[in-house]
Amino acid sequence: MTKEKLSIVKIGGNIIDNPVALEQFLTDFYHLEGRRLLVHGGGVMASKMATQLGLETKMAQGRRITDAETLKLVTMVYAGWINKYIVASLQKIGCNAIGLSGADGNTIPSHQRSPIPVDYGYVGDPNTDKMNTEFLSKLIDMGATPVFCAITHDGNGQLLNTNADTVAYSLSSSLSKHYNTSLYYCFEKEGVLRDLNDPDSIIPSMTQAESEIYKQMGVIADGMLPKIDNSFRAMEKGVNEVIILHAKNLISKKGTILLNYRDGESKP
Amino acid sequence: MTKEKLSIVKIGGNIIDNPVALEQFLTDFYHLEGRRLLVHGGGVMASKMATQLGLETKMAQGRRITDAETLKLVTMVYAGWINKYIVASLQKIGCNAIGLSGADGNTIPSHQRSPIPVDYGYVGDPNTDKMNTEFLSKLIDMGATPVFCAITHDGNGQLLNTNADTVAYSLSSSLSKHYNTSLYYCFEKEGVLRDLNDPDSIIPSMTQAESEIYKQMGVIADGMLPKIDNSFRAMEKGVNEVIILHAKNLISKKGTILLNYRDGESKP
Repeated sequence: MTKEKLSIVKIGGNIIDNPVALEQFLTDFYHLEGRRLLVHGGGVMASKMATQLGLETKMAQGRRITDAETLKLVTMVYAGWINKYIVASLQKIGCNAIGLSGADGNTIPSHQRSPIPVDYGYVGDPNTDKMNTEFLSKLIDMGATPVFCAITHDGNGQLLNTNADTVAYSLSSSLSKHYNTSLYYCFEKEGVLRDLNDPDSIIPSMTQAESEIYKQMGVIADGMLPKIDNSFRAMEKGVNEVIILHAKNLISKKGTILLNYRDGESKP
Repeated sequence: MTKEKLSIVKIGGNIIDNPVALEQFLTDFYHLEGRRLLVHGGGVMASKMATQLGLETKMAQGRRITDAETLKLVTMVYAGWINKYIVASLQKIGCNAIGLSGADGNTIPSHQRSPIPVDYGYVGDPNTDKMNTEFLSKLIDMGATPVFCAITHDGNGQLLNTNADTVAYSLSSSLSKHYNTSLYYCFEKEGVLRDLNDPDSIIPSMTQAESEIYKQMGVIADGMLPKIDNSFRAMEKGVNEVIILHAKNLISKKGTILLNYRDGESKP
């Protein structure tokens, strides 16, 4: 039986700061062929709210530490404001969205990251082999469009702050059992750039071997590193295609396409 | 065909401030016979957070006015922190909870309250005849336990702050098409009291005619007024039973039972 197409789209949370861009993006998203699922971030809005609350942002090795107060804050901002704002905006254009965290329907069971060598606090990584894809695929087959924030849980009552790119990777990998999946990482640039200062230097496609060379060259660095690593891992786990692109190019799919074959192999 | 039993339980949001009481309550809730649905408030926690953020609470005729900043705040607190904390706590005890606002799955379409005579801002009242009970009953029949916060939407992208008692009333009324429904209003007292200072003065049962007399006597006043009015309206719309009680008595069902027959009629 041919699997139905499912597009998993990851977007930053700051898009809700621009209602015009948001409505255009959500309209494009709604017009993707087949079933859809959205994953959103929200770090920029959480930092703003932390400042407003007078919460100190604690960092370790360049990453935010999620203490109890920060966990409460990110759960409020991601699962509350951003998630429900996007859901209401999708409902407005006729898309039957349903907002979820990984605790809802036990869709994304996770484990708290080991405090050794660095204790990041209430930060979790999904147990990708234990995702409740049965529940999620029933929801999707009912015609609902899941909208995920990057909050998960450990099954023992503890909510966990989770990387949104990783949530998108975990969902797309595990849902590949049920669907023919495509993963889109939307961000503020047009794709992976050879030169960060030159928007015309997009790398149109990349194999895993090529990505290793780009890493050594420093072309793939910082936040792009986990995106690229997650992308190739996703394809190993059955995801059909991964594209890294600007949110405005979701329909044209212009960006950096990651290629699911090794150098020397013929293109499938 | 006999309809399946569905218990709709309304609880205040402040219960999550007491982890021991919360776990006991959720365990009792999980052991109710048949299907279940939880509705939670959160006004006390929203007020605390408003103070922390330096937001001024604006009131009109004793009720909170929901301006844009307050809407953002209550969406964060109700749909974010309280909702996900309860969902994770239910998952811990094996109950497959799914947290929802009225925007999710378009479950509770609402309309903004008229600004005349008093402009309460972004406050909504559910369109009880347009609730998406098809979607909700499919979720429930999948074995999921919906956990509702009192945020709804107008279908045009606007989130709306909604009275949690009214959400419970609207859900129980509209779900009576599909289920044999019971509505439980849990609060901090053991039931409707003849004398607020005497916990032993519980009124064990009440008809609608009796409730009118209690209103004239001032026994039913303030926050109890809409609870009682909603309760009798719910029974007119097909809800089987309504009980007003303390959260700790959910299993024993000891509290004030509202009676679904008029004085002079024989008890059904």
